[in-house]
Amino acid sequence: MILTVTLNTALDITYRTAALTPHATNRVAEVSERPGGKGINVARVLAALGHESVVTGFVGGRTGDALRELLAAEGPGGQPAHAAVTGAPVTGAPVTDALVPIAGTTRRTIAVVDETTGDTTQLNEPGPTVTPAEWAAFLTSYEGLAARADAVALCGSLPPGIHVGAYAELVRLARAAGRPVLLDTSGEPLRRGIAAHPDLVKPNADELAQLTGSREPLRATRDARRRGGRSVVASLGAAGLLAATPDGSWRAAPPTAVRGNPTGAGDSAVAGLLSGLVERLPWPERLARAVALSAATVLAPAAGEFDREAYADLLPRVAVTEQSSQPEQESHAPRQHR
Amino acid sequence: MILTVTLNTALDITYRTAALTPHATNRVAEVSERPGGKGINVARVLAALGHESVVTGFVGGRTGDALRELLAAEGPGGQPAHAAVTGAPVTGAPVTDALVPIAGTTRRTIAVVDETTGDTTQLNEPGPTVTPAEWAAFLTSYEGLAARADAVALCGSLPPGIHVGAYAELVRLARAAGRPVLLDTSGEPLRRGIAAHPDLVKPNADELAQLTGSREPLRATRDARRRGGRSVVASLGAAGLLAATPDGSWRAAPPTAVRGNPTGAGDSAVAGLLSGLVERLPWPERLARAVALSAATVLAPAAGEFDREAYADLLPRVAVTEQSSQPEQESHAPRQHR
Repeated sequence: MILTVTLNTALDITYRTAALTPHATNRVAEVSERPGGKGINVARVLAALGHESVVTGFVGGRTGDALRELLAAEGPGGQPAHAAVTGAPVTGAPVTDALVPIAGTTRRTIAVVDETTGDTTQLNEPGPTVTPAEWAAFLTSYEGLAARADAVALCGSLPPGIHVGAYAELVRLARAAGRPVLLDTSGEPLRRGIAAHPDLVKPNADELAQLTGSREPLRATRDARRRGGRSVVASLGAAGLLAATPDGSWRAAPPTAVRGNPTGAGDSAVAGLLSGLVERLPWPERLARAVALSAATVLAPAAGEFDREAYADLLPRVAVTEQSSQPEQESHAPRQHR
Repeated sequence: MILTVTLNTALDITYRTAALTPHATNRVAEVSERPGGKGINVARVLAALGHESVVTGFVGGRTGDALRELLAAEGPGGQPAHAAVTGAPVTGAPVTDALVPIAGTTRRTIAVVDETTGDTTQLNEPGPTVTPAEWAAFLTSYEGLAARADAVALCGSLPPGIHVGAYAELVRLARAAGRPVLLDTSGEPLRRGIAAHPDLVKPNADELAQLTGSREPLRATRDARRRGGRSVVASLGAAGLLAATPDGSWRAAPPTAVRGNPTGAGDSAVAGLLSGLVERLPWPERLARAVALSAATVLAPAAGEFDREAYADLLPRVAVTEQSSQPEQESHAPRQHR
């Protein structure tokens, strides 16, 4: 079982409109809702890959009730009534709800999709304030779950009320239980969390630059390792992934640039890395899986879902190349432009 | 008791953001929710004026539950915990919930207030589809409520599934019960509804022009009477109201132009007209009340609420002038420009 933690879960609402006109009244043509938050998205992809997963974090209020109901309605493999995954039949595993109830109300996120331009305007509520007693209750539950997990993933932002060192605390508890732990967050929670020595961190280019002060990916990735990450896998958008690990450094890139909706592509990459870790795949295979899943997510028509056929097609065609471990060669590596 | 009908009720959500940037991710700083839909807004103002009111229409799903809970939490006078009315202490009357449950989910409306510009971007969900059986259940309930109402107000748009002649049907039922009935809607439901001879219709300038084809307010108002409205009160925005009634025609204008948020100003005018009707005030007093309430709503800091002190200050200063009944003088009346 893989445990994913989403401290700031969300009810993700999508509005489709003919065109979004600011400072005017806009009729919404179509409304859809689904359980959201990075760890929940990761669990949905893990389930579709056949890995049993347990989701935890906080949930409360009417939006929390809606989130739990929708999560329960998603069949094995994260397959809701309207099909989570495009393509071949699903042979998925269950997602188990171990969310901890709180007095506050789970936040909503609203994605307004403009059907004319295809652009999305995102509105994110701040989330409920979590009390010290609720955090203590979560820690007790988390220790029990982590003790029986094959791997733990800590994903996303912290809700109000949670101390900035929370992820560092969760990393230490997982390590004390002897469980591999992945951290996917940003800002100060990432800075504190990485110092607690997680097995894997997966920053994107912006998060990595904010952490290390460098926009040179190979240098920044290695710097992140020095800060405490045992392995660091940076996601570089359309350019794929760059990994710095105790076994070596690799770049993994999709065979062609893919166009589509990048929402959830990072969460699919995390699911690819976690499943590869649990299956004890060599690094190049883990990275190929993560890149193929990520690209298949960009290609899927619905945000945050992946196209199974595209995944199967892309997987053998991902180019994984080992990087020199010589720091003096870094300047020859292709630079990441903003 | 005054009965207000809101067939397409809504959970009104307000998001405050530092600035709304389209096609980007926007953090919402503050979230507030309240029961919405025109008839519910009218009832809230009636209650603040000391008139007992009953709200009916449809309600369903989690958003419907939230709407009912918030409605019950509003104290006498439509006073929620965060104060519905600005100014003097409230001496209000209760709003009674007689909403009819449906299987569908009550719509949300989202008002995104940009704190930098003060502008509001509105997103309106379409609303649930009402089944024929639910409409039949509503009619039974409505007939019982209308029979004991001093006046009936039919407010707002029709949700999907309701036939376009629905307001005409509700007008006829109220008239058959001998109850005065006000209609405040637009488009084809207004066209059909007015033909059933409501006692009062309150179109705005656009609705009136759409109904009659004329943008000359006095001519259009009198045309609307010929179409079946016993009295017609047109709201002309900052210019106030224009009334054509069996007792004469009047213009009523605020003493000075007011600046602020016009959301709910029309609903406050309806509450002023209804309360004046039930209190059997002469037309000039009803119109003065409606104009003062409407202007005090524009002046209130929160959308759809009215400033009691501004209302008390404005009421004696509203200018009500009788209009000539000679059609040949219409061309001398000031024209309404868009």
